[in-house]
Amino acid sequence: MDAISIGLLGLGTVGSGVITIIENHQDKLMHQVGCPIRVKKVLVKELGKDRAVKIDEAHMTTNIEDIINDPDIDVVIEVMGGVDKTKEYLLQAIKNKKHIVTANKDLMALYGSELLTAAKENGCDLFYEASVAGGIPIIRSLVDGLASDRITKMMGIVNGTTNFILTKMTQEGLPYDSVLKEAQDLGYAEANPASDVEGLDAARKMTILATLGFSMKIDLDDVKATGITTITEEDLHYAKQLGYTMKLLGIAQRNEGKVEVSVQPTLLPQSHPLASVHNEFNAVYVYGEAVGETMFYGPGAGSLPTATSIVSDLVAVVKNMRLGVNGSLAVAPQHEKNLKGSEEIYSKYFLRLHVKDEVGVFAEITSVFSKHGVSFEKILQLPVKEEDLAEIVLVTHLASLKNYEDILMELRDLKAMKEIKSSYKVEGSAGA
Amino acid sequence: MDAISIGLLGLGTVGSGVITIIENHQDKLMHQVGCPIRVKKVLVKELGKDRAVKIDEAHMTTNIEDIINDPDIDVVIEVMGGVDKTKEYLLQAIKNKKHIVTANKDLMALYGSELLTAAKENGCDLFYEASVAGGIPIIRSLVDGLASDRITKMMGIVNGTTNFILTKMTQEGLPYDSVLKEAQDLGYAEANPASDVEGLDAARKMTILATLGFSMKIDLDDVKATGITTITEEDLHYAKQLGYTMKLLGIAQRNEGKVEVSVQPTLLPQSHPLASVHNEFNAVYVYGEAVGETMFYGPGAGSLPTATSIVSDLVAVVKNMRLGVNGSLAVAPQHEKNLKGSEEIYSKYFLRLHVKDEVGVFAEITSVFSKHGVSFEKILQLPVKEEDLAEIVLVTHLASLKNYEDILMELRDLKAMKEIKSSYKVEGSAGA
Repeated sequence: MDAISIGLLGLGTVGSGVITIIENHQDKLMHQVGCPIRVKKVLVKELGKDRAVKIDEAHMTTNIEDIINDPDIDVVIEVMGGVDKTKEYLLQAIKNKKHIVTANKDLMALYGSELLTAAKENGCDLFYEASVAGGIPIIRSLVDGLASDRITKMMGIVNGTTNFILTKMTQEGLPYDSVLKEAQDLGYAEANPASDVEGLDAARKMTILATLGFSMKIDLDDVKATGITTITEEDLHYAKQLGYTMKLLGIAQRNEGKVEVSVQPTLLPQSHPLASVHNEFNAVYVYGEAVGETMFYGPGAGSLPTATSIVSDLVAVVKNMRLGVNGSLAVAPQHEKNLKGSEEIYSKYFLRLHVKDEVGVFAEITSVFSKHGVSFEKILQLPVKEEDLAEIVLVTHLASLKNYEDILMELRDLKAMKEIKSSYKVEGSAGA
Repeated sequence: MDAISIGLLGLGTVGSGVITIIENHQDKLMHQVGCPIRVKKVLVKELGKDRAVKIDEAHMTTNIEDIINDPDIDVVIEVMGGVDKTKEYLLQAIKNKKHIVTANKDLMALYGSELLTAAKENGCDLFYEASVAGGIPIIRSLVDGLASDRITKMMGIVNGTTNFILTKMTQEGLPYDSVLKEAQDLGYAEANPASDVEGLDAARKMTILATLGFSMKIDLDDVKATGITTITEEDLHYAKQLGYTMKLLGIAQRNEGKVEVSVQPTLLPQSHPLASVHNEFNAVYVYGEAVGETMFYGPGAGSLPTATSIVSDLVAVVKNMRLGVNGSLAVAPQHEKNLKGSEEIYSKYFLRLHVKDEVGVFAEITSVFSKHGVSFEKILQLPVKEEDLAEIVLVTHLASLKNYEDILMELRDLKAMKEIKSSYKVEGSAGA
């Protein structure tokens, strides 16, 4: 078989990693696919720049047409990012019968279904392992490894930046702002960190995972995301004291065919497998009816880890090319979208309140909960230093989101309520 | 496409799970493969027995010929166990162009290469995800997910029985014998537990993982296995005090093309991802040159988890049947076997000694190590109660296996040496 020709869109951190792996692992790749793989053309913004990898200028272009209209090019690897323009490029490439490997979570979360349909219609593969959790082969594990099972729950630490920040805040007792600054200095967080710290990046990844895991087209708008920007040292202190660890968690759950997907800071028991996922690492916990608990752990980003997933996808494309079966294995979602209402979404909650330190306040607060049929797993009441206030920290038993939102509204209206300091989801029970 | 017909060899715990999943998940399976899947015939030892799943007697047989010679049967699922007879059955089935899915680690560790070759020659698939780490899709992750990477190290907790025993011993401070008894009562350990507790079961799984991960035919005889039967409460106490957790660990490592594979109780830093794998759970930690650290966690055994892997393999077979590409993707090992000699295998070691409590003994012992160029990371010396002895506990820096074995021999010959109480591998450095 002739060499396989790749067109690479983008030569940033991940693009350089792709070039490095294809060069360094050529032997292994050749052994697996039976032919050489060469990068024929790389799309860059400008020529003549210093780069992490050395590439002959003859192999670079600033014109997308040189790649998507080159009949020699078999596979387009997209690591340039962006959404609308990138989508047009890829659709054009697919029309020209090129297979696609992409790391673009924004694109897949918004237009994955449209792109996958176009690919299938044109007999092309479109793989996107690198779009979720960098080097962890989670998409393959959902599609192939757990193919026979019915997945009922996925929980993911799928954003390395926020996991780094929360780990540092927890381990070193530092405030959010100073740890964010450190993460920016280390290159773990961007100058404008909004997409990470507001939970949007994690929401995109959960959209992709939920669509696959539940075989149901979930849209990014269906995923409510809350970030980590308001988490305080006090919250982490109480979490620890109660036996929990705070993580920014994507949660996708299915019950009787109905689905919920969300991203928010969540208290996990310290004994939970996800609680030991530290620093910039990612992990996805998958619960299947038959298999039970599984977890997939690894680097969520970085040049070479992400490139590993991309080149592994490329290997799959080339194997399919040899067998002449590209595009044949794609399966459309099995189920119509069916989202839970807020009265069907159940969780436990952690709540921290500042109230006036008066007789009867405690009873007033607990009566709001009992009115809605919500009871407590734990309650602490403590005085607040230098103020005429008391701090109440509580963990509820399971409550519907609707009931909980009603409770929050009623608590806010209490005369004795000074401030609802914080409110978080709680998963499982800590032994403490 | 017509229904796919399965012949099932064995109807024990795992076989019943296979029937259950095929029945309960028929919708999802049908959606994925585009045709119904039915179990046509089940091989059992005797008819008319009470069973966990209900099957019409017409679908059962005690005669293997009814399955391997039935031209209707497309796929044989083997969950009967055993080696020699089972191998003959499967070779015969392959000759009759039947695809194979097996959960049989003993068979795959001993004859995997022969069976895979036969399957490829006959255009048949042979998949064996369930043979290692039950419900964890580790084989797929090595073959597909990390296809582009060069794997340099794998460490596995791949035996649930021993992990259960060590977890209980560690958490509850109980002796080996009583925990083994508890494990037997709970059904986690067999009446004759030798294959688990001596490390042989783990060695079989590491043989399979190393062969795949390093693309090199490793034989079971190449894997030195030490079990957990001599681990004492004192060992676990010291391990904990030094910041380590004891695990029965399969370790497969490659350096410059040369490979070592072993199974032994090993001290892991408490912060290592594998150290939080408790009870009967399994996990495989994989280090790739490009991807870095990954870990795959889940149930290592059990009816439904193991059956999940089997039926996922079945889905892959049926997809390949639809595309007409069975047997085409199997890749023979890329490298000739190249094992490290004992002078090339490096590790740190934990050693616990009882010596006569005399002047100069300590110097005598340390001089044996320094003679072989091995230095210490940690040393404790403590008196032994009610005896005229001292206990010395030490952790070495990296030493070659050859040097370490020489050191042990020389220590045994020292006049002041009462007993070498225990000796374990140590992975990584504990902060403590």
